[in-house]
Amino acid sequence: MSTTLQNDLFIKAALSQQTERPPVWFMRQAGRFMPEYWEIKNKYTFLEMCKTPEIAADVTMLPVDLLGIDAAILFSDILVTAEAMGGDLSFEQGVGPRFSNPVRSLADAQKLAGAESIDKLQYVADAIKEIQNRLNGSIPLIGFAGAPFTILSYLVEGGSTRDFKRTKLMLNNEPELAHLILQKIADLTIAYLNMQIEAGVNAVQLFDSWAAALSWNDYRDFSHNYNKYILDNLKRTVPVISFAKGASVFAPLIVESKPDVISVDWNADLLNLKKSLPEVMAVQGNLDPFIMYADKPVIKKKIHELFERMRGEAGFICNLGHGISPDMRFDHVKFAIDTIKEFRY
Amino acid sequence: MSTTLQNDLFIKAALSQQTERPPVWFMRQAGRFMPEYWEIKNKYTFLEMCKTPEIAADVTMLPVDLLGIDAAILFSDILVTAEAMGGDLSFEQGVGPRFSNPVRSLADAQKLAGAESIDKLQYVADAIKEIQNRLNGSIPLIGFAGAPFTILSYLVEGGSTRDFKRTKLMLNNEPELAHLILQKIADLTIAYLNMQIEAGVNAVQLFDSWAAALSWNDYRDFSHNYNKYILDNLKRTVPVISFAKGASVFAPLIVESKPDVISVDWNADLLNLKKSLPEVMAVQGNLDPFIMYADKPVIKKKIHELFERMRGEAGFICNLGHGISPDMRFDHVKFAIDTIKEFRY
Repeated sequence: MSTTLQNDLFIKAALSQQTERPPVWFMRQAGRFMPEYWEIKNKYTFLEMCKTPEIAADVTMLPVDLLGIDAAILFSDILVTAEAMGGDLSFEQGVGPRFSNPVRSLADAQKLAGAESIDKLQYVADAIKEIQNRLNGSIPLIGFAGAPFTILSYLVEGGSTRDFKRTKLMLNNEPELAHLILQKIADLTIAYLNMQIEAGVNAVQLFDSWAAALSWNDYRDFSHNYNKYILDNLKRTVPVISFAKGASVFAPLIVESKPDVISVDWNADLLNLKKSLPEVMAVQGNLDPFIMYADKPVIKKKIHELFERMRGEAGFICNLGHGISPDMRFDHVKFAIDTIKEFRY
Repeated sequence: MSTTLQNDLFIKAALSQQTERPPVWFMRQAGRFMPEYWEIKNKYTFLEMCKTPEIAADVTMLPVDLLGIDAAILFSDILVTAEAMGGDLSFEQGVGPRFSNPVRSLADAQKLAGAESIDKLQYVADAIKEIQNRLNGSIPLIGFAGAPFTILSYLVEGGSTRDFKRTKLMLNNEPELAHLILQKIADLTIAYLNMQIEAGVNAVQLFDSWAAALSWNDYRDFSHNYNKYILDNLKRTVPVISFAKGASVFAPLIVESKPDVISVDWNADLLNLKKSLPEVMAVQGNLDPFIMYADKPVIKKKIHELFERMRGEAGFICNLGHGISPDMRFDHVKFAIDTIKEFRY
């Protein structure tokens, strides 16, 4: 573990140590809600931004400089692993990610590369080194990857989906095909996160954004088992955060994969959930992102309600239950960060 | 309680009594997946169907005759209360429900009628009597209403929504306005469900379809408290079922409102959830509706997995975690019902 960070609140909380206030970062803290993001985004495609270490570093640093968060997160996308495996990925304005070659048959699955495609992700290691040069020991840098089930859903659907109909049809009718693809994703994800750890990130987060689509048994068989396999094979020299929307429902399973931190959506009472975990497992969350649309006194009230509820708990990182939306006001997000940083237990 | 039903499996299970197999009904069992539904639907508007007791009875009886379920559910819509209160409701093909006069200000809210608008819902009592004539004591009839928060969301948004942005903005910035509307909805809902009970339904279900949009505190303050108020004021002569997508997360709160049955979505392990409830609280659920798209042997396997898991538990009604979708195959739904009815503990 790094011991040279000037601000190590995030690392301390991730390791379930007491801090004088909750550290804070927000999912999608470098994104479309920021005018400064658009100044960069208007010049490049999204994938160019991810693949050019200088640009990825520029974007990663935006919330460091403009919001003053306690942890930076690598600017990238969960789908870069799927692209490295052979997915023909593009991002269209207003449409989101698209794969022109969805994976729906055994032949499609066999064409996908596995862990050997790690070489194609070298640009991420380069970006991490560039970002760490710029951060210069000020705050920690979080790396991340998409969890296998979430990545599978994009590959099978060919993009975003509301209902996961094709993906669930595969899980139900062709579970062996799903397992073949999930295993390839999981193997690459291990190599990918270990590469990030070697390149110098101070923590990693596994994003299982769409896990809540699944039944308990399907979550266990097609998501949790692969997440556990990944965590079992990581170099556990930095804290590992497990994020799933619906984490509160699946928490008893997530605990079995032994992350350092569980990132929790806003449905749960965070204190009750934390008390159900092993003592050395921290929690991250769980503000409803929609409070950012509300008036500033409401934002402050909701933050203080959460913090009073969590008073005295070691191992609490403040975050949103999901990401910042593009139409949220920058000054409201900044106000939330300032409010959080002013708080003392 | 009715003691004259020829098939009282559903009532027994709802009252946490042992049955030789789980009783079954499916949410949206009389709906767009049925060719016979379209033969009726093509002749009338949706609201005409709801408001004409003969037609509502015709539709209610479709799954009784064609699927052989263990309980019928009144053909109606959760939004009829909102319409009675003054909402200008229409249903457009492919768009869903629309209110041309969304409720977004104090003036809008003051225009809404409360419990006094119960007279406008007399057609529902008439439909119930007609349906009970036709059922003739064969199986129980379930009545229902939408829960206040879910109804509020439609009134505020003016229709369906993916993100509940306007509704949550009201909860955050104008909580007193939200409470004013919720109280009116709750008062009418008490009158409405009591009217259904007096008209002869054998059980009622409260549908809080969109509760999972809320944080724990907001669910407690803007949803649960009103649901509890409703249940506290019902003539508890028939079993009451509480349904919320996300019920597994909110179960500890739902328990406080003392329903006879909690209807659970597919994220939860149903046995673990049931064991967390008082012994005399039954559960309903929790098949993933998407298994209906799968091959028949898969449907059978998933049903048997659930039933083996629940073996020996009194108080289990088989249902889907949410409704049947329009593009699900009738023969698959029928196969599921047959599979369930062939099972013996």
